[in-house]
Amino acid sequence: MVNYDAFFSRAAGHMRASAIRKMSGVATQGRDIVSFAPGFPAPETFPWQDFQEITRELLSGRDGSVLQYGPTRGYQPLLEAVAGVMSQRGAPTSLDRLLVTTGSQQGLDLVARVLLDPHDVMLVELPTYTGAITAFRNVQAELVGVHQEADGVDLAALDETHQRLQREGRRARILYVVPNFQNPTGLLISLKKRAALLEWAERRDVVIVEDDPYRDLYFEDSASAADVRPIRADDASGRVVYLSSFSKTLAPGYRVAWIDAPAPLAAKFEIAKQAADLCTGALDQRVIYESCRRGILDRQAPMLRAHYQHKRDVMVAALRREFASDLSWPDPRGGFFLWAALPHGLDADQMVARAVQNGVIYVSGDAFFVNGSGREFIRLSFSAPSPERIEEGVRRLARTIREELAANREEPPARAAL
Amino acid sequence: MVNYDAFFSRAAGHMRASAIRKMSGVATQGRDIVSFAPGFPAPETFPWQDFQEITRELLSGRDGSVLQYGPTRGYQPLLEAVAGVMSQRGAPTSLDRLLVTTGSQQGLDLVARVLLDPHDVMLVELPTYTGAITAFRNVQAELVGVHQEADGVDLAALDETHQRLQREGRRARILYVVPNFQNPTGLLISLKKRAALLEWAERRDVVIVEDDPYRDLYFEDSASAADVRPIRADDASGRVVYLSSFSKTLAPGYRVAWIDAPAPLAAKFEIAKQAADLCTGALDQRVIYESCRRGILDRQAPMLRAHYQHKRDVMVAALRREFASDLSWPDPRGGFFLWAALPHGLDADQMVARAVQNGVIYVSGDAFFVNGSGREFIRLSFSAPSPERIEEGVRRLARTIREELAANREEPPARAAL
Repeated sequence: MVNYDAFFSRAAGHMRASAIRKMSGVATQGRDIVSFAPGFPAPETFPWQDFQEITRELLSGRDGSVLQYGPTRGYQPLLEAVAGVMSQRGAPTSLDRLLVTTGSQQGLDLVARVLLDPHDVMLVELPTYTGAITAFRNVQAELVGVHQEADGVDLAALDETHQRLQREGRRARILYVVPNFQNPTGLLISLKKRAALLEWAERRDVVIVEDDPYRDLYFEDSASAADVRPIRADDASGRVVYLSSFSKTLAPGYRVAWIDAPAPLAAKFEIAKQAADLCTGALDQRVIYESCRRGILDRQAPMLRAHYQHKRDVMVAALRREFASDLSWPDPRGGFFLWAALPHGLDADQMVARAVQNGVIYVSGDAFFVNGSGREFIRLSFSAPSPERIEEGVRRLARTIREELAANREEPPARAAL
Repeated sequence: MVNYDAFFSRAAGHMRASAIRKMSGVATQGRDIVSFAPGFPAPETFPWQDFQEITRELLSGRDGSVLQYGPTRGYQPLLEAVAGVMSQRGAPTSLDRLLVTTGSQQGLDLVARVLLDPHDVMLVELPTYTGAITAFRNVQAELVGVHQEADGVDLAALDETHQRLQREGRRARILYVVPNFQNPTGLLISLKKRAALLEWAERRDVVIVEDDPYRDLYFEDSASAADVRPIRADDASGRVVYLSSFSKTLAPGYRVAWIDAPAPLAAKFEIAKQAADLCTGALDQRVIYESCRRGILDRQAPMLRAHYQHKRDVMVAALRREFASDLSWPDPRGGFFLWAALPHGLDADQMVARAVQNGVIYVSGDAFFVNGSGREFIRLSFSAPSPERIEEGVRRLARTIREELAANREEPPARAAL
């Protein structure tokens, strides 16, 4: 028998499966389960007919490059379209700053590999996106979390943490933030705080990694395009590495996202990507490019805002109906997620088994905290289920919480012993 | 001005752009250049019509999962189809050993991250595939090359090298080989040597990474399915990590490949892949799966063997016509590449400029050597150009070599001074 443990790298020894990905597995076991776990876009919103037409045209043209290896940077016309998107977002750019990535997860991975050595510190929000946590951990970085207020990361705590790490001789030069409808909290960083963050990064010689997949999905009853202005838009000195994606606005089955970064960083990301997967799929890039060129992306965005806003409405109304005061949450102003605090004494991770029994799943908050806390929170994705299923799922969740509270009252000693 | 150098990880400091990828850039500048540089499959062989039909059916079904995020391991029916392919190759497997990767380049990257620490040694053939070199270097591994004979890696040199490294206290536990129609040499490892390699790996407690993208492309005039039997097929104890791909048999624009590995390793590769790109594109995987299920892959293989054998014939005939004895090469028995030794005194890397002037490009041999040697070799890919272009390219190459030889005779001192 081969002892494989002896073959693993130190990095592999630290690798942990993502909690969300594990939950996705639970959902697919074929039982009747309402899944609030994975942050999947709603497939009924995908422009199926357009994709069909575009693909038919691309494959009937018999242009060899449509199915060939392509440049690592990305398909040139798509890069130009991305530059157009960046301009729309108030952040004009140039082609030497842009790189197409195989989903934003690859973008995070490239950032990790190019900017982090083992034991370097990555500053993150508490809580933060699990995919970023795993990407940064996989290069053996240490993640240090900073408390979030209702309008984003706590600036005083951020500076205090950074200064403490500096005094300890730690390399803590990168801050990761999701300013728009953060995964998992759904929160927005205020415009004032965005400006302050940029000023802080300049003062402390820090690079900000701004991850912005949900920008287009602001809910028009409570947010506007002005509220989601990227930090990158006001970055005059090259402090921001900006990541965004077409997965939430067109479809995640096409693995197409991008990085916009100062040219010297973009050049290194490109070299890292060569070794990671040579190039992003040629056909995927063409389909996304054609979707930009033909105005499909521009047409999708307002429709998607309305679609997800409606689902948010349905979930919030159902939660209000089912929970008098047991559950509390900030109403999401965009994105896919509602972040709720459980009644005092409940443990979201322990409660998963009962939730599955009752036919509903969510992600326990601790998946998003780099400091081991967070079990008093649950993340509910309202993006994928239908309105009817959202209502059913919230009923099942309410039953789960009632049962869990009752069980806690009955057997507090046994639980404490755990 | 931000000093970005101060932000780079040590790994990023070591990252170098692939020589082949740079050459691809040269070819696309719009001039009339015959490119023997990149190992691209011939687009005229792609089953365009089948892809069109399959995609139309997939996109008209409106099954949301076709364009959704999917499991990191891969689309289950595709994994089952891959298991069928493995059986055909004499290496029956199980689903817990399989992982779909975003091209085999990602497979190499996952292998590197899971099995190599900085300063670990990766044993490789001299010469070897550049994509593997960059993937292993990107995790700061040290690559140590072992001389190749006509039937594959020199076993005595391999053991000697391994023992020397052991004595020096180095961790040298992984051997990377491309046994079938190696990129760049086009060589096959003999069956006898495959058995000996496996026995050696067992004795020295080494894991073999077997990279096998060209297996289906044996040329029936000089090789058979028996000659390309994977090392993995005779691996009883779990010593082999096997990589293969659909890029050379269906199309590289779909980024779909796979790893077959002992289950504990496959599990770690899966976790590493979660952080690298979450999942391989859902639509790409469906298209490849349907191509397997409908017998398109089985139909393509014999056609491709004939196609590339013909191009090999054209190139070899043209080389014989143009070069009396100046150039020497082993006739490829499969795959995409012809590996030629230049006339004495010529430097393939220096000659690139003249070749481009004459309208032809190749890859200089040093791109494939981890020890800095190899400038007396050129790699010529005959896979993508048409027979007419192959002939024209060989004429241009012959002119280039004649001119270079003449220039060398005229100005030996100036050259020596370089």
